[in-house]
Amino acid sequence: MIIIMKPSASQADVDAVVSRVRGFGLDVHLSAGEAHTIVGVLGNTGALDRSSFEVMPGVEGAVRVSKPYKVASREFKSADTVIDVRGVKIGGENIVVMAGPCSVESRSQIIETALAVKEAGAQVLRGGAYKPRSSPYSFQGLGEEGLELLAEAREVTGMPIITEVLGPSEVPLVTQYADILQIGARNMQNYRLLQAVGKVETPVFLKRGMSSTIQDMLMSAEYVLANGNYNVILCERGIRTFEDYTRNTFDINAIPVLKQLSHLPVIGDPSHGTGKWELVAPIAKASLAAGADGLMIEVHAHPAEAWSDGAQSLKPDRFATLMAELRNLAAALGRSM
Amino acid sequence: MIIIMKPSASQADVDAVVSRVRGFGLDVHLSAGEAHTIVGVLGNTGALDRSSFEVMPGVEGAVRVSKPYKVASREFKSADTVIDVRGVKIGGENIVVMAGPCSVESRSQIIETALAVKEAGAQVLRGGAYKPRSSPYSFQGLGEEGLELLAEAREVTGMPIITEVLGPSEVPLVTQYADILQIGARNMQNYRLLQAVGKVETPVFLKRGMSSTIQDMLMSAEYVLANGNYNVILCERGIRTFEDYTRNTFDINAIPVLKQLSHLPVIGDPSHGTGKWELVAPIAKASLAAGADGLMIEVHAHPAEAWSDGAQSLKPDRFATLMAELRNLAAALGRSM
Amino acid sequence: MIIIMKPSASQADVDAVVSRVRGFGLDVHLSAGEAHTIVGVLGNTGALDRSSFEVMPGVEGAVRVSKPYKVASREFKSADTVIDVRGVKIGGENIVVMAGPCSVESRSQIIETALAVKEAGAQVLRGGAYKPRSSPYSFQGLGEEGLELLAEAREVTGMPIITEVLGPSEVPLVTQYADILQIGARNMQNYRLLQAVGKVETPVFLKRGMSSTIQDMLMSAEYVLANGNYNVILCERGIRTFEDYTRNTFDINAIPVLKQLSHLPVIGDPSHGTGKWELVAPIAKASLAAGADGLMIEVHAHPAEAWSDGAQSLKPDRFATLMAELRNLAAALGRSM
Amino acid sequence: MIIIMKPSASQADVDAVVSRVRGFGLDVHLSAGEAHTIVGVLGNTGALDRSSFEVMPGVEGAVRVSKPYKVASREFKSADTVIDVRGVKIGGENIVVMAGPCSVESRSQIIETALAVKEAGAQVLRGGAYKPRSSPYSFQGLGEEGLELLAEAREVTGMPIITEVLGPSEVPLVTQYADILQIGARNMQNYRLLQAVGKVETPVFLKRGMSSTIQDMLMSAEYVLANGNYNVILCERGIRTFEDYTRNTFDINAIPVLKQLSHLPVIGDPSHGTGKWELVAPIAKASLAAGADGLMIEVHAHPAEAWSDGAQSLKPDRFATLMAELRNLAAALGRSM
Repeated sequence: MIIIMKPSASQADVDAVVSRVRGFGLDVHLSAGEAHTIVGVLGNTGALDRSSFEVMPGVEGAVRVSKPYKVASREFKSADTVIDVRGVKIGGENIVVMAGPCSVESRSQIIETALAVKEAGAQVLRGGAYKPRSSPYSFQGLGEEGLELLAEAREVTGMPIITEVLGPSEVPLVTQYADILQIGARNMQNYRLLQAVGKVETPVFLKRGMSSTIQDMLMSAEYVLANGNYNVILCERGIRTFEDYTRNTFDINAIPVLKQLSHLPVIGDPSHGTGKWELVAPIAKASLAAGADGLMIEVHAHPAEAWSDGAQSLKPDRFATLMAELRNLAAALGRSM
Repeated sequence: MIIIMKPSASQADVDAVVSRVRGFGLDVHLSAGEAHTIVGVLGNTGALDRSSFEVMPGVEGAVRVSKPYKVASREFKSADTVIDVRGVKIGGENIVVMAGPCSVESRSQIIETALAVKEAGAQVLRGGAYKPRSSPYSFQGLGEEGLELLAEAREVTGMPIITEVLGPSEVPLVTQYADILQIGARNMQNYRLLQAVGKVETPVFLKRGMSSTIQDMLMSAEYVLANGNYNVILCERGIRTFEDYTRNTFDINAIPVLKQLSHLPVIGDPSHGTGKWELVAPIAKASLAAGADGLMIEVHAHPAEAWSDGAQSLKPDRFATLMAELRNLAAALGRSM
Repeated sequence: MIIIMKPSASQADVDAVVSRVRGFGLDVHLSAGEAHTIVGVLGNTGALDRSSFEVMPGVEGAVRVSKPYKVASREFKSADTVIDVRGVKIGGENIVVMAGPCSVESRSQIIETALAVKEAGAQVLRGGAYKPRSSPYSFQGLGEEGLELLAEAREVTGMPIITEVLGPSEVPLVTQYADILQIGARNMQNYRLLQAVGKVETPVFLKRGMSSTIQDMLMSAEYVLANGNYNVILCERGIRTFEDYTRNTFDINAIPVLKQLSHLPVIGDPSHGTGKWELVAPIAKASLAAGADGLMIEVHAHPAEAWSDGAQSLKPDRFATLMAELRNLAAALGRSM
Repeated sequence: MIIIMKPSASQADVDAVVSRVRGFGLDVHLSAGEAHTIVGVLGNTGALDRSSFEVMPGVEGAVRVSKPYKVASREFKSADTVIDVRGVKIGGENIVVMAGPCSVESRSQIIETALAVKEAGAQVLRGGAYKPRSSPYSFQGLGEEGLELLAEAREVTGMPIITEVLGPSEVPLVTQYADILQIGARNMQNYRLLQAVGKVETPVFLKRGMSSTIQDMLMSAEYVLANGNYNVILCERGIRTFEDYTRNTFDINAIPVLKQLSHLPVIGDPSHGTGKWELVAPIAKASLAAGADGLMIEVHAHPAEAWSDGAQSLKPDRFATLMAELRNLAAALGRSM
């Protein structure tokens, strides 16, 4: 971090800044410019707040020149992280597609959908057993019964399963069933949950919060990594903006930016990123073209009867068509799928 | 909810919509317009999703004509809710000011600040023992030691205390100390935490999420209310927008809107709503003028040494000056303080 | 501006930056830190782009330490600008209220409304003759006939009039009638129009664009000032955010920020800032409490029959009640009205 | 439009709504539901405001069931519009790339760049002669000299040229030189300018305003179309959000949405949509994958010396590499380029 003093700053102002920096166990390098004295902070400044210096007398501003996250950064690890989930590789050259219904609704629904998405080429099965619903009166998921049905679908199809975990106390139970733990957008900054999933070994699928910046997302990944779980997958799923024709604004820029700043795999979720099934195919393609390592897509055999997210779910036949197009596209992009 | 069919909708399309509505245990009223058949849903539609109908064949659109929250609404309870916290009334005619440091840092810091804010007229003491920090490497609060120091400050000053709870498993411990449980902005849609604080009797102070709409906030309040805790206080603390001069954009409109839509007390937080101490006074006044039932203000004896949020903390003397101005303003607005 | 070089920057990289700065006719001061060489730019950097340096090899980042606007800033002129419009003072201690219908619709409508708002205490009459409508098929205003009706209302009531000008070629005509030229939100960065109104002497009322930052707004004011017209009034009228319960999000923070950064008068527009008549009174009061120098309020004798903006217009009797409350509030705030 | 009355609405309330609708020359269809009477408006409701009904006594809400734009819509014209510019087809199967510098800076700069982008496969040359700059002190473009240099570059290369027009009075002059008139993002709702370019025959390239919804954009296109110019090209160039790592948030969703709602060609601008040259290639590819009919890309032979937008400009060699990748991608997508 570099702290720029005002032209009017006194020596006492500079001394106070230096002493505050040293209070954090860090050292400084001073350089006296013609107008501004500049205080360069040496060492790991990840825990420092810019604003805590900007409030001090005589300070013009502060600039962070190193990133506040560390283990998540490309500087820390230049090679792409590849996560192996029961033989499915996430990250690297391979493009992976995770598909399935928003919620697990019944044995027949999840098995039927699992078989369909597998046949179309999906490699991971998604399905919610615990659902974060904005209304306390809405269907909240089948709970452990849903987990059991997912495990059964895994047995039938051989596909690893990903499902959401809502609270720290449920991590042990969900971990017994799930191959990947999903952290939903609303929980992206639920630090107790991030700490809990940081302490298990099951890979973590971290969805971007709807008002989270790219840096916020990498800081949340850092929470999981700093607790010892190095298997983190990042997911762009759209942010909240003024545009109301779509459910969210899919931030396509985030895909190459995350690939540049971090070594972690990046997945696009065009279902939540648009909220409309007819936009899923173009945004799925755009995600791959922008460099995503895979996709998460909601598929439901009967969207008009889905208990949640029907508007953004593809029918199995449309999904199969899309998968064929994506394979074609992946080849043109030099990726395998 | 009213579902509008397309001019081209077939009888089968209409039948499918009707049958889906009935599947939720609700009844319908059909009216055949010249161009559009209209399906009116009768009964409590709080659990229905508009989008799940909009995806059905032949549906033009759906409009919600009743609110998705119930217990939180003015229609449910027309009189203002007044919450009594150790004799301090929150809601109603009275204006309450909650003040104190962002984090509890030491015994002397919290006692000194508590005495100062009490003398200036604050009625509730705030202070964080568990801090939700975006970096895993930043100071995370003193934990239970912080709770003990807050309790000591309560003993010294007689002021009730408000402090944040970060996870469901910490609710029992924090409830032992705190008079009001704060749910932070990042946790506004942490449903497991909302359920947990909904099951205790301690009043809950719910901060608006930074990308939450007013309706989202009332739905989160509904989670607490629906679990049996009727003592909910709403807090506007700014939303995330493109404006970057201030830390957040304080949504002043939300104050009269929340008062109109709900019977719950509404508190403004100008410290987080602006992120700059020099804006706290004008936005505190604006909040009262817009109809807020009180304020939460960060005060620190030595902001330049604060471990967090120093940039937005007032010094005790500035806080005392502001309190005098607020009393004057409250009188002009016909409120007592 | 301060340009921070990367630790890996070569001497040639530094030389290229220095030479580019000098190409703009500015000088530099170099200081070699332990890790980062820092290039301080001396002189007026208003025309420099940070990003044009950040793209150069070896550059870590650039920070602006002076403001890009000059004549609009408090540093340029510390005393509040007070603009005299036919004897009405805008800025300074006085609080001014501008009121009237969205559009001039007929002789009787504008005269009736003008008399009503004058009686309630408004000092300036507003009314649109040229309307910027999002649909080419909507009513576009009465044009010059509207200007004539406004002039007649001025004659009847003695109130100066403010009306919008939509294009540079209409500036001469509108200037013949209007006492204040309004630049609408959609035209805040219409530079040809800003230049045109910068070349006349009639005061300019500049509404904030709905996605404009506070700095953008001051840069647009600078366009008018730099062209020679020093009579600029700033208007906060709400910005576009994800919140959809209100038409716009009134950025109350902008009021004290603009007063701090600039000497120009600042007016709040609670009608557009909320889009709902029932929110106009609380946000009008909040604007004054936050330090606004006045208000612009839409008033229509028969809102349900208004040709535009009926939803946010007050009836004359409600406006009169509000004015009484505002006078009371102004007194408590130490302002005259 | 469908207007839903409150359960409590009186017959007089319904009558007032009906009479207001008829005042606009439209007819109604009434249907009395169990709880809500519903007023269906028959005929072209493009000029009606929802909010002007919602303010009326007894009205619960209003829903627009037809689109407010007409000529721009797919319903009006189902076949893709293809615009022929000196033999270059914009729209339809072909993918067109427009490239060149942000600003025309000198004869050698524009000719050198024009030759380079042509060789790489670009079909249209871009370059700004009149620049909308946020600072009145920044370089404002070479003006007519810039237009002459563009014309010279056209003569040398045979490529048609696109350049921005800033004000209605400059339309005749710019039209003499330009093959396509660009309307910049800040002028997207400058209705006088839209009307002026609607009255000429030169194709219009309409950039999305940074806080404009997709519907706003189509309404602005409608202004041009309604004035008689049917040659409108739509350009997604990013919107303003809270994310600050990139200059704008490129709204990739807008591309398939615009193609669905309108028959007009849709172009992506990854240079402004990201603000960083290293993101241009992935977002260019994503735009094509999402269905764009072409791209506008800033190319500068010496970005570090560019007078504007250097940070987002590609060097000619990188542009050539990108073009090769895009041709490959276009083939995989079944498009010609």
